[in-house]
Amino acid sequence: MSITTSPLSKRMQGAQSSAVRDLLKHTQTPGMISLAGGIPAQDLMDLDGLESATQLAMRSTQGAAYQYGLTEGEAPFRQAIVKLMQSRGVVVDPDQILVTTGSQQALDMVAKTFLDEGDTVLVEEPTYLAALQVFNMADARLVAAGTDDGRLDMRQLESLLQRERVKLIYLVPNFSNPAGATLQLDERRRLIDLAVRYQALIVEDDPYGELRYSGDDVPSLYKLANEEFDAADQVIYISSFSKILAPGLRLGWCIPPRTYLNPMGLAKQSLDLHSSTLSQYIATFYLQSGRLEDRIRVLREAYRSRRDALIGAIERYLPNVIEFNIPEGGMFLWGRLTNGLSAKTLLEYALGEKLMFVPGAYFFSGTPDESTLRLSFSMITSQTADEALVRLSRAVQKAERARTQSA
Amino acid sequence: MSITTSPLSKRMQGAQSSAVRDLLKHTQTPGMISLAGGIPAQDLMDLDGLESATQLAMRSTQGAAYQYGLTEGEAPFRQAIVKLMQSRGVVVDPDQILVTTGSQQALDMVAKTFLDEGDTVLVEEPTYLAALQVFNMADARLVAAGTDDGRLDMRQLESLLQRERVKLIYLVPNFSNPAGATLQLDERRRLIDLAVRYQALIVEDDPYGELRYSGDDVPSLYKLANEEFDAADQVIYISSFSKILAPGLRLGWCIPPRTYLNPMGLAKQSLDLHSSTLSQYIATFYLQSGRLEDRIRVLREAYRSRRDALIGAIERYLPNVIEFNIPEGGMFLWGRLTNGLSAKTLLEYALGEKLMFVPGAYFFSGTPDESTLRLSFSMITSQTADEALVRLSRAVQKAERARTQSA
Repeated sequence: MSITTSPLSKRMQGAQSSAVRDLLKHTQTPGMISLAGGIPAQDLMDLDGLESATQLAMRSTQGAAYQYGLTEGEAPFRQAIVKLMQSRGVVVDPDQILVTTGSQQALDMVAKTFLDEGDTVLVEEPTYLAALQVFNMADARLVAAGTDDGRLDMRQLESLLQRERVKLIYLVPNFSNPAGATLQLDERRRLIDLAVRYQALIVEDDPYGELRYSGDDVPSLYKLANEEFDAADQVIYISSFSKILAPGLRLGWCIPPRTYLNPMGLAKQSLDLHSSTLSQYIATFYLQSGRLEDRIRVLREAYRSRRDALIGAIERYLPNVIEFNIPEGGMFLWGRLTNGLSAKTLLEYALGEKLMFVPGAYFFSGTPDESTLRLSFSMITSQTADEALVRLSRAVQKAERARTQSA
Repeated sequence: MSITTSPLSKRMQGAQSSAVRDLLKHTQTPGMISLAGGIPAQDLMDLDGLESATQLAMRSTQGAAYQYGLTEGEAPFRQAIVKLMQSRGVVVDPDQILVTTGSQQALDMVAKTFLDEGDTVLVEEPTYLAALQVFNMADARLVAAGTDDGRLDMRQLESLLQRERVKLIYLVPNFSNPAGATLQLDERRRLIDLAVRYQALIVEDDPYGELRYSGDDVPSLYKLANEEFDAADQVIYISSFSKILAPGLRLGWCIPPRTYLNPMGLAKQSLDLHSSTLSQYIATFYLQSGRLEDRIRVLREAYRSRRDALIGAIERYLPNVIEFNIPEGGMFLWGRLTNGLSAKTLLEYALGEKLMFVPGAYFFSGTPDESTLRLSFSMITSQTADEALVRLSRAVQKAERARTQSA
């Protein structure tokens, strides 16, 4: 029982809003260039395909699209996801799929299903902000394995597993948010082996897998655990339609090991009964139309050229000020300021120049590296990339001048 | 830290599926008559209006309906809800409204925001099943005030408030689920007075308020607390579009006291970032079309006649076997078997006759009254009401015969 005078739960007394979502409010400022959100480009959305699918959802379901549905998801939608998973090299039955209200909800379902207060979750450092928020709200204890040169430090990960009683390992193995890193095949195998040895569940969050611009696809942890390791109970796979179709539909899915299907479904039930029936039918008809494959090709080409435009602009305007790795996919470039400035300080000056990005510090569960920053290239073009870096250069100059003056 | 070998959280090891949602699977059986779910009648949905609104949401938003949105909800939707609340006699600003993924999610937000393990929640007995599920998942302690002759036992409620340190009082004051009871004006005033005195927050769940078939509207607890008691911090108001518009959109809203807006918004953020943008625009355009008022009139008339058809059929076929109160609105008739049969036993025989209802026992947080049952009249007509009671009579006969034989 609470002994405070505030009626708020303990978790809420320390809770903070997602810095990224709060930053999003600045996108309303006229003329703002945003390198902040992981937002799919509006101009790359297949609105024609979405409209056709919406028409079908309305007209061919005799109102079922507006009615209550099943907690686990509509049967044809789960079937369509099975086919999509096949294209990712994974064979599953429809009854293994739980439809979720975005992949964010899948994370909350994982927390509800597995985490008691004080349970330990191992994350990458830096990692996805909204996952940190969910695990913090679940009163979990977070331990973090660092990344070195954009790659997960497997030795640190192993020593954490040895030392701590880790219940869940959360990671985004493809083009991680924010670091843009991809776990290589040998690292994936080692990770599964460790997870089995230390009886930790892997939560594989894969929103970006199809958005690869260079290099070769790497099999998912889910696939490897099931096919190479006979460790089907070890991986919960989570994905989303937000980056490849339309985030406004709020649709994701998760594939838990069979043994956890029932409790995960119960968690879903208590959260919102079921996800939007209309959204599910729209996504179903869209997937059935066969347009997704083409759309993913369009997205890959466009995002690749946006990534390269941003890289080019950084190299032209701030070559000695921002260090970064080149991500093989996804939406983010992870950088480090080499001039000793804090990214939060730089952001203040950048907002004055009508440029937004996200300071990297927000993505750390432990001591943050204040020099880091996340630059999203999803919303820019080659023109705006140059203008963005012109503005960022001005912000850097002003921040450096202010630092000199106050020194 | 968990000391069990199961990786499931403690809450999940004892969790049970919602009996009502599980029962819903039987609705697939051909020829089944369902008095089970609190499901809006498909034939009463305004599909034309929904289609027009969906067309507008697709075509007039330049794709915004498919894009990410704000956690609190889209501005025009919150504005439309403000207007709807005016029709319920409540004056609020748009920024006081949090859009939720159905009212179920609002309950989970309340739990996340206010409940630590072991905190006490006072509920009506019987009460809404999915609320019990949420509070149980939050590891809350439940205490219950009984209902007598369909009315909340205010003396028991007061003595519970005296004895226990109650943090939340949860109730459905209009046409409660399952009991169909309505809290009268004097009882509402007394409840607010008690809540202020004992510093308990009232969670007012109002999905059915507009579906009144007899008697006069009673002001909401939210309105009374704000206007008569100067106790704006005492009531969280929750409502839903599921019963008056379309449950498939998964849209509800809550109006917390201003002081809790921020933490409740944070809870929402961690749950699913935001509710379906498309659904929000559809509901907005529907509300702006002015069709809701007419639709509510249609619903009231149809449900009134369905309620009366069910009452008539019970009186014709099982007058001495089922006792019940006449609800002034909502979707449910709450009955009691006077022949000593348990409703769960009766359900087994009823399913054999292709008739479904929900045994009342599921709605109890404490010791259940096994003789109770909930009969929903939302999906029946005067023809099916008679046929339903013919089947129920047969089930009663068979259950009684089986009891005699085994005695």
